[in-house]
Amino acid sequence: MDEKLISKAVIRRLPRYYRYLGELLDDGVERISSGELSKRMKVTASQIRQDLNNFGGFGQQGYGYNVRYLYNEIGKILGLNRTHDMIIIGAGNLGQALANYRSFDSSGFKTVALFDVNPDIKGKKIRGIEIHMIDELPEFIKDNHVEIAALTLPKSEAVHVAEILVENGVRAIWNFAHTDLNLLLPEDVVVENVHLSESLMRLSYNLTTKEIENSEKDDK
Amino acid sequence: MDEKLISKAVIRRLPRYYRYLGELLDDGVERISSGELSKRMKVTASQIRQDLNNFGGFGQQGYGYNVRYLYNEIGKILGLNRTHDMIIIGAGNLGQALANYRSFDSSGFKTVALFDVNPDIKGKKIRGIEIHMIDELPEFIKDNHVEIAALTLPKSEAVHVAEILVENGVRAIWNFAHTDLNLLLPEDVVVENVHLSESLMRLSYNLTTKEIENSEKDDK
Repeated sequence: MDEKLISKAVIRRLPRYYRYLGELLDDGVERISSGELSKRMKVTASQIRQDLNNFGGFGQQGYGYNVRYLYNEIGKILGLNRTHDMIIIGAGNLGQALANYRSFDSSGFKTVALFDVNPDIKGKKIRGIEIHMIDELPEFIKDNHVEIAALTLPKSEAVHVAEILVENGVRAIWNFAHTDLNLLLPEDVVVENVHLSESLMRLSYNLTTKEIENSEKDDK
Repeated sequence: MDEKLISKAVIRRLPRYYRYLGELLDDGVERISSGELSKRMKVTASQIRQDLNNFGGFGQQGYGYNVRYLYNEIGKILGLNRTHDMIIIGAGNLGQALANYRSFDSSGFKTVALFDVNPDIKGKKIRGIEIHMIDELPEFIKDNHVEIAALTLPKSEAVHVAEILVENGVRAIWNFAHTDLNLLLPEDVVVENVHLSESLMRLSYNLTTKEIENSEKDDK
């Protein structure tokens, strides 16, 4: 299995396969054909076979995929077979929302601390996870094995905080600030940007396009 | 301008162009060449020309792009030249975080109400926006022009609420629940799924891959 040869497009699709396989497991399904999976996911069966063949030997002709095996193998590829300690910087509504997501825990993403600048919420706990002050950040990282930092901060502060994180050895940033942090940080730092307003704009585009289509239909 | 011929990949990139052009406007930049934009966005200049040529006639040889014109045109394509009234269903941390995003307002997405099942927060206001009880939802939609509904609910409730929305005429759903709502709703309903845990898994994948690369380098 040479992971480096897997295309980015396939990687982008893996978490979705992982989710559907997890649901199948929850439903007690042990085996599934590419045809059946295709119906559930609304992806062609040939796309599914092509995607999953990247990892070699999961499917067996006339037998289908072993759901648990496939789930575990994709989990390993996604790095979900071990725990990743995560901190959240910015304990506003969004930061607290992330700290409250129990499903992250079950995928191995364990939030160990939140950080904020607001002294009023110092020491407060979200689902048992303490809010620290941001000036404690460098020491906390040195004393704890922090792998991932989620940034739920305004753009104006995100760049500075990201630099502190990187200086102190954090190598993965989950960025919710409205800026492309990956362009500003060293190449060996992994950044995943979540730009919510861009997602909303795509929705708006699709809505607008659909309205135009419908009004053209009405004209006929 | 035939919008239907624009590829999905280009559409996905438009909000990012829009963001960079907005920043240029804020910085007082009136004109920019594809080469300069390329440096800022870390996208090749030829990719930029190819993408923006879809909309015809924005760039002029030796002159560059008129930033405001391009910003406005892309805004129109994305449907940002008018206001979209939005409701948020689920007034937990994530719902409140979305209600607090001022930048959505400036892009024309105006949150007019939140809905929840928790009677303790009934009538509470987030940035002046009232939290209603979920049973008021059908009537609220009838009395107000609601275009977009953001769903920040558990998966178990999201499907049922989405059906109520669609029955009452909402045609765009911004879905944060951990399920592919688009597969369950009529085709004329526009759905944008935001799957945060999948984003986190991509981060984890990239981190894991980078670690493998680095350990291989160390072995040499």
